[in-house]
Amino acid sequence: MVAGTTAERPVCVLGLGLIGGSIMRATAAAGREVFGYNRSVEGAQGARSDGFDATTELVDALIRAADTDALIVLAVPMPALPAILVRIRELAPNCPLTDVTSVKTAVLDAVASAGLRARFVGGHPMTGTAQSGWSAGHAGLFSRAPWVLSVDNHVDPAVWSMVMTLALDCGALIVPAKSDEHDAAAAAISHMPHLLAEALAVVAAEVPLAFAVAAGSFCDATRVARTAPDLVRAMCEGNSGQLLSAATRVIELLCRARDSLACNKSVAELVEAGHAARTRYDSFPRSDIVTVIIGAENWREDLAAAGRAGGVIRSALPSLDSP
Amino acid sequence: MVAGTTAERPVCVLGLGLIGGSIMRATAAAGREVFGYNRSVEGAQGARSDGFDATTELVDALIRAADTDALIVLAVPMPALPAILVRIRELAPNCPLTDVTSVKTAVLDAVASAGLRARFVGGHPMTGTAQSGWSAGHAGLFSRAPWVLSVDNHVDPAVWSMVMTLALDCGALIVPAKSDEHDAAAAAISHMPHLLAEALAVVAAEVPLAFAVAAGSFCDATRVARTAPDLVRAMCEGNSGQLLSAATRVIELLCRARDSLACNKSVAELVEAGHAARTRYDSFPRSDIVTVIIGAENWREDLAAAGRAGGVIRSALPSLDSP
Repeated sequence: MVAGTTAERPVCVLGLGLIGGSIMRATAAAGREVFGYNRSVEGAQGARSDGFDATTELVDALIRAADTDALIVLAVPMPALPAILVRIRELAPNCPLTDVTSVKTAVLDAVASAGLRARFVGGHPMTGTAQSGWSAGHAGLFSRAPWVLSVDNHVDPAVWSMVMTLALDCGALIVPAKSDEHDAAAAAISHMPHLLAEALAVVAAEVPLAFAVAAGSFCDATRVARTAPDLVRAMCEGNSGQLLSAATRVIELLCRARDSLACNKSVAELVEAGHAARTRYDSFPRSDIVTVIIGAENWREDLAAAGRAGGVIRSALPSLDSP
Repeated sequence: MVAGTTAERPVCVLGLGLIGGSIMRATAAAGREVFGYNRSVEGAQGARSDGFDATTELVDALIRAADTDALIVLAVPMPALPAILVRIRELAPNCPLTDVTSVKTAVLDAVASAGLRARFVGGHPMTGTAQSGWSAGHAGLFSRAPWVLSVDNHVDPAVWSMVMTLALDCGALIVPAKSDEHDAAAAAISHMPHLLAEALAVVAAEVPLAFAVAAGSFCDATRVARTAPDLVRAMCEGNSGQLLSAATRVIELLCRARDSLACNKSVAELVEAGHAARTRYDSFPRSDIVTVIIGAENWREDLAAAGRAGGVIRSALPSLDSP
């Protein structure tokens, strides 16, 4: 796929569930050396029986990462992160580090607490399925999917280039963004839909005939309520500040619509605004980011602005340090 | 398909949009005589050029319906209904009558105001697409879809049997229900999802990075916000009483979740209840209604209870008056 100074660096994936397992497959398919760790025997055996290099021994994986200067990918659930970071600090403190968790500010805080911020670039592939575990993954999971890479003020250009190459090797479209902006967006487009689906399922369950007549629209609207409660809680509770803002705004709009329906028998304001917003989304302009040089003056701010405007990185950007 | 005393009665479809046009195609495919009316020349011409019998003259269609004692299907948008009912009262007052509108109580009130209640059985096929108009329809639209038929206290057994046969000819699964129970269910599973999708689209549009990173889950959650605002308003505002209850309950659940997130950093209560409700829906039992005889003592109540419990009619029930 992408040639360059970082292309031969091995990849060490910690956590071989849906996302981590798919990264392992995709990077291997791109010709990279990749090895991984999974806490459960089942996941590691699944990977091994599919021909991948996986262990249940975190210490072994981290010593190997340190020895080979591998790019470490944190693909464990949020609650497991602090303990893993402590071991990385002990055993592989100089390895470049990224993650694939859905809440960027909380992860950045945890990484900073572990003293690992200097070599860290946060990431979030915006894809997934209702399934989980090694067996649910596949090499094409990230194909043409947005993959957010954080361009916070601390990020190192060399590490950023490495993580960019990883995401491109996986076939993703990179959206550069500040961590806090990512989290505000994730609250609106991902975490809030979960809460709405849960609320709708509860309300329908209370109406005697509802399940008997429910069809496509209800199924779609509550699909994400099938996600395991622990995963939903980890996302939502890990992004509580931004989710509170989104929830408050949704409640405000719904209350106003309800009052208008009660007083004027009209939901015109909400319905017209919603239709206009969705129409704007359908015509949201996508463009390729091609002119930014990683490490040049203001490169982080330039990338954040380009991402906000709909720009994506489809092929590796040059770097100031490139040969 | 279904043989019986009503099988040869012609069908007169008023309104040849997505639903009416699909009924025309499906009943013709089942071997029934069918003719129709559409206000716009475009819709009627579309039907004619596909080989169907359609006119833009309402008077002609209704005189023919009266002459042939056709079953009239009201498939016009809610706002057009009162004017059409006046013409039916004038020109075809004795024809059996059904409708395919999404709000049953409001239609029943309009039909009663026009003095046509005695020959009316309300209906609602729970299907559709984001498209509309003659060209969007097809004969298979109702295949295995729930089609609610009202069993309100006034309904006549003979008309009920005719409308049952129509829905079965279209390939639907009939869910018998009281009009008010239908409307409460429709508020929860159809109208409320529209309001939530609109609100979510508005909130996402206000967050700078949201559209740039939006993917599958946001697209699905706001899909119905693409529906034309006039259609959404007609459904929601025509069912304002039931929708107010559903909206109030959703707002209550969201406020409680927001407060719990703010005070305890937890959304456990909502997330667990939502997951449990959706799981219950996935295992909701479906059964066939086979033992009720139309016109027998308590037949309406028996059908309503069976529908509430997940029962559907897949093949014609016998009638007390059957030969």
